[in-house]
Amino acid sequence: MDKAGQVSMEAIVSLCRRRGFIFQSSEIYGGLNGFFDYGPLGVELRNNIKQAWWRDMVQSREDMVGLDSSIIAHPRVWKASGHIEGFSDPMVDCRVSKMRYRADQLFFAPVVVEGRVLGYVSVLEDVDMQAQAEEAANKLKRKLAVQGSLEALVLQPYAESRPEQWALVPSPATGEPGSLTAPRAFNLMFETHVGALQDAASVAYLRPETAQGIFINFRNVLDSTRIKLPFGIAQIGKAFRNEITPRNFIFRSREFEQMEIEYFIPLGEETWRKAHAEWIQTRRRWLESMGLDPKRLKEQAHPQEKLAHYACACTDILFDFPFGTQELEGIAARGNYDLTQHSTHSGKNLEYHDEVTGERFLPQVIEPSLGVDRMLLAVLCSAYSTDVIDGEERQFLRLHPRLAPIKVGIFPLVKNKPELVQKAREYYERLNRRWNVFYDASGAIGRRYRRMDEIGTPFCITIDYQTLEDQSVTLRHRDSAVQQRMGMEGVMAVVGEAV
Amino acid sequence: MDKAGQVSMEAIVSLCRRRGFIFQSSEIYGGLNGFFDYGPLGVELRNNIKQAWWRDMVQSREDMVGLDSSIIAHPRVWKASGHIEGFSDPMVDCRVSKMRYRADQLFFAPVVVEGRVLGYVSVLEDVDMQAQAEEAANKLKRKLAVQGSLEALVLQPYAESRPEQWALVPSPATGEPGSLTAPRAFNLMFETHVGALQDAASVAYLRPETAQGIFINFRNVLDSTRIKLPFGIAQIGKAFRNEITPRNFIFRSREFEQMEIEYFIPLGEETWRKAHAEWIQTRRRWLESMGLDPKRLKEQAHPQEKLAHYACACTDILFDFPFGTQELEGIAARGNYDLTQHSTHSGKNLEYHDEVTGERFLPQVIEPSLGVDRMLLAVLCSAYSTDVIDGEERQFLRLHPRLAPIKVGIFPLVKNKPELVQKAREYYERLNRRWNVFYDASGAIGRRYRRMDEIGTPFCITIDYQTLEDQSVTLRHRDSAVQQRMGMEGVMAVVGEAV
Repeated sequence: MDKAGQVSMEAIVSLCRRRGFIFQSSEIYGGLNGFFDYGPLGVELRNNIKQAWWRDMVQSREDMVGLDSSIIAHPRVWKASGHIEGFSDPMVDCRVSKMRYRADQLFFAPVVVEGRVLGYVSVLEDVDMQAQAEEAANKLKRKLAVQGSLEALVLQPYAESRPEQWALVPSPATGEPGSLTAPRAFNLMFETHVGALQDAASVAYLRPETAQGIFINFRNVLDSTRIKLPFGIAQIGKAFRNEITPRNFIFRSREFEQMEIEYFIPLGEETWRKAHAEWIQTRRRWLESMGLDPKRLKEQAHPQEKLAHYACACTDILFDFPFGTQELEGIAARGNYDLTQHSTHSGKNLEYHDEVTGERFLPQVIEPSLGVDRMLLAVLCSAYSTDVIDGEERQFLRLHPRLAPIKVGIFPLVKNKPELVQKAREYYERLNRRWNVFYDASGAIGRRYRRMDEIGTPFCITIDYQTLEDQSVTLRHRDSAVQQRMGMEGVMAVVGEAV
Repeated sequence: MDKAGQVSMEAIVSLCRRRGFIFQSSEIYGGLNGFFDYGPLGVELRNNIKQAWWRDMVQSREDMVGLDSSIIAHPRVWKASGHIEGFSDPMVDCRVSKMRYRADQLFFAPVVVEGRVLGYVSVLEDVDMQAQAEEAANKLKRKLAVQGSLEALVLQPYAESRPEQWALVPSPATGEPGSLTAPRAFNLMFETHVGALQDAASVAYLRPETAQGIFINFRNVLDSTRIKLPFGIAQIGKAFRNEITPRNFIFRSREFEQMEIEYFIPLGEETWRKAHAEWIQTRRRWLESMGLDPKRLKEQAHPQEKLAHYACACTDILFDFPFGTQELEGIAARGNYDLTQHSTHSGKNLEYHDEVTGERFLPQVIEPSLGVDRMLLAVLCSAYSTDVIDGEERQFLRLHPRLAPIKVGIFPLVKNKPELVQKAREYYERLNRRWNVFYDASGAIGRRYRRMDEIGTPFCITIDYQTLEDQSVTLRHRDSAVQQRMGMEGVMAVVGEAV
């Protein structure tokens, strides 16, 4: 924990690895940058997040239906959506070190002393990059033995550099200028070939977002259901982006999973403004209902001038991660740009027919888009807690019971009393029919509680000698560490209510 | 329905499209061969299959844990597993038509009349390919005006052809010989590049199976859990195979999903034989418990000489699909081949340490592997039913309630009586908190039943005037069409018990 009471990324990564939430992909082969594997507890947490979203956003709403489209789609989908043309990041190479950087994450500034330019410094985007740059500038000044006071450094991204600056900016790898290339666009879609021929006609892409799979099925959904505007189509699925610099653990990886909604509405500015505002509220309430700390959630509207040309508005819900306050979910008002594009490119009529007014039109859309992995990371960061119990420091995950991988830990007081074990096994079988529960007979009870606390199990029950007399058990609550004596009916009710 | 009372593939495909279970991927762009999108009902059915498998095979068993590894892994994984070297199908090209065939699905035979070879015929694998070949042979005989009786045609796969035959076998596309190439191996893994450089060092593959993701995490699972042999690691996830001839709807597609288990056991032949037999039973019972018609399930052990060199045994559970009896699930005994390979290639010690005996060894493994899409197709084929009710033919899906996309249809008797609608809405809200249910007020009750029957909804309740008096509803059972009068507590109990 740092001074603000926040957990560090090191603590999260370490817990994830130690307790089997998340591993680096292909670890035994040295790892693969930007790819992750979810272990026994991670996959349960992940599934619980996805199921809670699906239950709350799709199944419990009459105005929503689900979809599961393929990861590889026809390449014309990405032509129409604009991804082939424009889905790229600016990158820059260092010719000497062969290192590669995002040109919008590499910053540089001229070093100026009393009006004279001594040279340039460069730094990689970081919370303290200004300080790093100043240090480098002072070093350069000392090296050149220049007197006088340094002017304030104005850092700018390399993506906005001018050609005459390219040879002057030092490479972050070598510290020397002259080896950086011009910034260039790098398409983030993974490319492959479908069929036996590896030619231009067989090129296909791994989808960089699930959203387009929804738009291309808009007609199919209209034709196979009786759903009427306003309505949404929701999808959970993997997406892939060949990030130049994947970073911050699972926050920005190359293979990730999205939970996306396209919510279709009638035309008109008032209509989309209202729907957009409602979805921001709906999504924020949902994030809070999953146990994310409301104090760590913020909203940020994209400034009008930074929106894509077709977008009406976009508001991000940000979360205060250990590495900074960053986008968790985006809620965009996209007009009817995507349906228009697919209608034009496919030559198919994708219009909605309003049976009451008789109008035919391409609906506008609101797009709330959340990453499963980012959500999972935010959940872990929010849940990570420490306190002191009985004079001993305790580390625990304050996970919402709906999301907890294991709902109940079941312990016989000691493992060498057959009557206790038998009773505990009986209760285990009973609870296991309804929930994912865990039986543990080994070690002191206190240690067993700690093991369950560390992975966020909200309840533990202990079967002791009194149980043999009156069937009651001790129900222990994770967050308060309070223990209550009750019968199994009571346990079933408490757990059933919470999860 | 055909004479044997079996549904045709046309009927299944048509139902899937009409009611929103399954669409061809990228349909508005002419479709993409071998890829499919699951619509609003399809995604629910798919999720229910996956959740039932996960619940029964992972969560309710203490000897199993889950995993979710990345689709793209380090390329050395596929080197070690043997997929780069050997995961290929034989293919053959027609130089004239540019058509491409699986060389093991293209059959040919010499046409012999009284000892004299007139030429060759070729056919694509099909249930009546022998008849097709005979027709072609007779045609050739007539064309050449040869008298005498045709000798029996002995079809053999082109994959086993000899070089001198290549120029003689007619292309299925042109009907003329001389244009077929030699058969050659075609690797089925989709290839892509990770990182900005498209060179040999950046090559990566979309996994052709989920199993290897389990083996490479074997050590991680041992280190992060306290699980002991025998135990299994289970995974559900997408896999990709660049099939030369995808076919039979979702049965053999290029993008599909697997539910795989690697069940690790101690060494010894007796051990694996016993575990293998148990898993065949466990998996077969599970398939039947999901409502698959037991009469349509068969077991087939691979003959010893056809096993991969490392495999001890493999038994397929076959299902009687409309296009033939084909593999649904494979249950392989793979020895410790995979762990040995990954241990050798990674240089990491993957041995299990038995704390009781002190032994260290690489465990053997039993691998039950089921495709989600194949399972879904088998479920639909098994469930598709017709009968006659009140003199009218009815088409319905006899889905197990656990798998049914919608559990209950809720109907007010008429939609223009506010009291009925209000009551029906109240009951809808109540049921909707627990299950995926559907409110429908439009059309005659009989038609509403039929719409629910067609998509396999096991229960419908109707709210009528009597409901307003005594709160009771009519609960109607899909398969029997029997209607019962009961209170909502009774409905909750019946549905809760079934799903």
